[in-house]
Amino acid sequence: MSERANTAKRQMKLGAFMYPGGHHVAAWRHPDVSAKATTDFQYRVAFAKAAEAAKFDLIFLADGVGVGESNVAALSRVDEWSNGFEPITLLSALSAVTTRIGLVATASTSFTEPFNLARYFASLDQLSEGRAGWNLVTSSDGIEAQNFNPRDLQHTARYARANEFADVVLGLWNSWEDDAFLRDKESGRFFDPAKLHVLHHKRTYFEVRGPLNVARSPQGHPVLVQAGSSEVGKELAARTAEVVFTAQRTLQDAQAFYSDLKARLPRYGRNPDDLKVMPGVFPVVGRSEAEAQDKFAALQDLIHPEVGLALLSTYIGNFDLSVYPVDGPLPDLPESNASKSRQQLFVDLARRENLSIRELYLRIAGARGHWQLVGTPVQIADALEERFLNGGADGFNVMPPTVPGGLTDFIELVLPELRRRGLFRSEYEGRTLRENLGLPFPRHAARPTSRRAAE
Amino acid sequence: MSERANTAKRQMKLGAFMYPGGHHVAAWRHPDVSAKATTDFQYRVAFAKAAEAAKFDLIFLADGVGVGESNVAALSRVDEWSNGFEPITLLSALSAVTTRIGLVATASTSFTEPFNLARYFASLDQLSEGRAGWNLVTSSDGIEAQNFNPRDLQHTARYARANEFADVVLGLWNSWEDDAFLRDKESGRFFDPAKLHVLHHKRTYFEVRGPLNVARSPQGHPVLVQAGSSEVGKELAARTAEVVFTAQRTLQDAQAFYSDLKARLPRYGRNPDDLKVMPGVFPVVGRSEAEAQDKFAALQDLIHPEVGLALLSTYIGNFDLSVYPVDGPLPDLPESNASKSRQQLFVDLARRENLSIRELYLRIAGARGHWQLVGTPVQIADALEERFLNGGADGFNVMPPTVPGGLTDFIELVLPELRRRGLFRSEYEGRTLRENLGLPFPRHAARPTSRRAAE
Repeated sequence: MSERANTAKRQMKLGAFMYPGGHHVAAWRHPDVSAKATTDFQYRVAFAKAAEAAKFDLIFLADGVGVGESNVAALSRVDEWSNGFEPITLLSALSAVTTRIGLVATASTSFTEPFNLARYFASLDQLSEGRAGWNLVTSSDGIEAQNFNPRDLQHTARYARANEFADVVLGLWNSWEDDAFLRDKESGRFFDPAKLHVLHHKRTYFEVRGPLNVARSPQGHPVLVQAGSSEVGKELAARTAEVVFTAQRTLQDAQAFYSDLKARLPRYGRNPDDLKVMPGVFPVVGRSEAEAQDKFAALQDLIHPEVGLALLSTYIGNFDLSVYPVDGPLPDLPESNASKSRQQLFVDLARRENLSIRELYLRIAGARGHWQLVGTPVQIADALEERFLNGGADGFNVMPPTVPGGLTDFIELVLPELRRRGLFRSEYEGRTLRENLGLPFPRHAARPTSRRAAE
Repeated sequence: MSERANTAKRQMKLGAFMYPGGHHVAAWRHPDVSAKATTDFQYRVAFAKAAEAAKFDLIFLADGVGVGESNVAALSRVDEWSNGFEPITLLSALSAVTTRIGLVATASTSFTEPFNLARYFASLDQLSEGRAGWNLVTSSDGIEAQNFNPRDLQHTARYARANEFADVVLGLWNSWEDDAFLRDKESGRFFDPAKLHVLHHKRTYFEVRGPLNVARSPQGHPVLVQAGSSEVGKELAARTAEVVFTAQRTLQDAQAFYSDLKARLPRYGRNPDDLKVMPGVFPVVGRSEAEAQDKFAALQDLIHPEVGLALLSTYIGNFDLSVYPVDGPLPDLPESNASKSRQQLFVDLARRENLSIRELYLRIAGARGHWQLVGTPVQIADALEERFLNGGADGFNVMPPTVPGGLTDFIELVLPELRRRGLFRSEYEGRTLRENLGLPFPRHAARPTSRRAAE
């Protein structure tokens, strides 16, 4: 079966999740990984170029605005959050040395001004000629909030703010019509005043006049990405998101999430296909199953118990587990204001498989709550295909265990298998991130569309 | 006289002021300029590479966070502020395609959070391996404030906030000691916990716990640049700035500003040489004086009267001049909350030279209040040398009238003349912006220095 014969077939969208040394918490200690990866820009360039050569849709950067050093002993054993690059600046730099791959950065609505954020991403979108995406997140009142004049960040209020924030940003991205700029030297008219729109936003959280001082880009505006899977998170996504990153470990959970979310879109006048669901996947690839298991075991062996316990603690709402026997069961947890859905994910996992605290943290330290696949290229392709073809995903956010090794394994071993099955592209379909993801071009609000109906 | 013989001599520092099409308000209409310059990243790359090849110390980007479209007819005739790149993202992108030139962006303390701003510039400093600079500005309550939940921005309060903002940023840039990161794979220790410092800032405007999640860079921290020349502005600069951009049109004014500012440094335990004064200069270069005058006249002819009037209006505190005869004198102006010193500059100029409104806007549209030099390479070098050797400047911020033409003229005609006189480098002295500017390395606050004495 030729690849060309499959071009009309629905294909997976793939993101490359960029941690400097790899997604595994102990990756930085692995022999394949440069210990200087966190602050070595060339390491990131190599990652981006490899992902682009392999035709990934996008690079994705997570983020946090603080250093949680309450447990400094554990923190000092990991390379995360302590000294890396900030995502918007990093992706801007990478935009100059790549030409096709999408660039998606996380930024919180809790600690930024919508005008600034709209402008940073619009500018990145211009710099990259239509390859920017913004992963909208909200933040809880933990360590990050202490860096921003500590404020009320209860779950409901922060989503109310996020909803309004998204409206302001989307509104500012409509400041200029696509053909507003005339650049007519002869008449001396640079733009058409009739195609400039002032926002005049004034509601509960924000008063923002506009217009934005950045033009629309070749993809209209940056792709809006989200990851929340609480009830309010899913409603915000159904109304505004174009890509949703999720963490489901089983096909059943993935199908339930996928169909639930997609069913919400028509209520906002949107087509279910206007939003792509891309669960995270942590693939450990071996030429044989034994090789894959050995690779994974070698990484797991590098996890210091202090790190495992601290990681688990943050994932269940900063609940201190150090007083409980590490080989005993997970205790009952108080409700957390942090990511509710994530806490529940781990509690369910521990109960379902009767895991001890140590067993639970070992599960988490690799995939960090995401779907973990340890196996051969065929096994991994089988699992991805099953989920993709059975209403569980539109694609995947690939989280390489180590960099560059884990990324190279996926590119050299799994992608050829997916291509043989006609499940992944051999060449980019479009010039912009939006085109490659198969998302509709957002028409300017001056010509009403369903997108803006919620205002 | 060989260039080598002059290496020990004090030399000028030079910045290249990057407007997309050039500093002249009508530059975009000039035949040498691409009308797409504002959003053509490759145009900026060419500028940066040319300035780097010519050994400029730095590229400088001004900024504003809004589109002042109250006079949309005039606005639609200029290319500024309406659709360009945001400076932090643009310089991050340029950091990937340059290796030696400094990258200085303007960002306001009035509309940003100090943690975010400290992080963006620290990240740019890492990406560029020690070439970042932050031009700290404050903003008045004009058009920009309307994009940020309009707030009190009276002159005194905004400088009080700016002072505290600078302390927070400098404090966050000291979160990690220079040798904090061990990256020891064997022991599994990534950093030394004793070399991580929490800020615990809490004063009038900000409560910021820290630490920052970006490490110190090869230059310690980004170079702190300022441009305020009011009384409170000069005090803030004397306490914290390492470079000051200014606008003095005469040698006498430049000398007065220079000696006044430098004399303030010892009060803060600083050496006068720890701060470089770099006035702006707008050079129109011709191989003959007549050629230079012709070049300038050709640009002036491209200024539409609507543009000239509107530009003058913004420079004198948004005072509407359209009701006054354009060939009559400048009326008396009410005191403005905008840049006080800039308003006074233009009033003084008009009175001193008995200029009509039209004559005044024609003066401003070129140099925009900066020092204007129209002449041969020798004449321009003479003027720069006079000011440099007579206590008026440590260097200059060069504002090319057009890009690339005006920049090329300065590089190909004026720089060789300055080099013949031993006044400008032929090769970079250091790897970092700080080294090239001859500024001291900021020792980490854990070892007390005079810098931090004000806290």
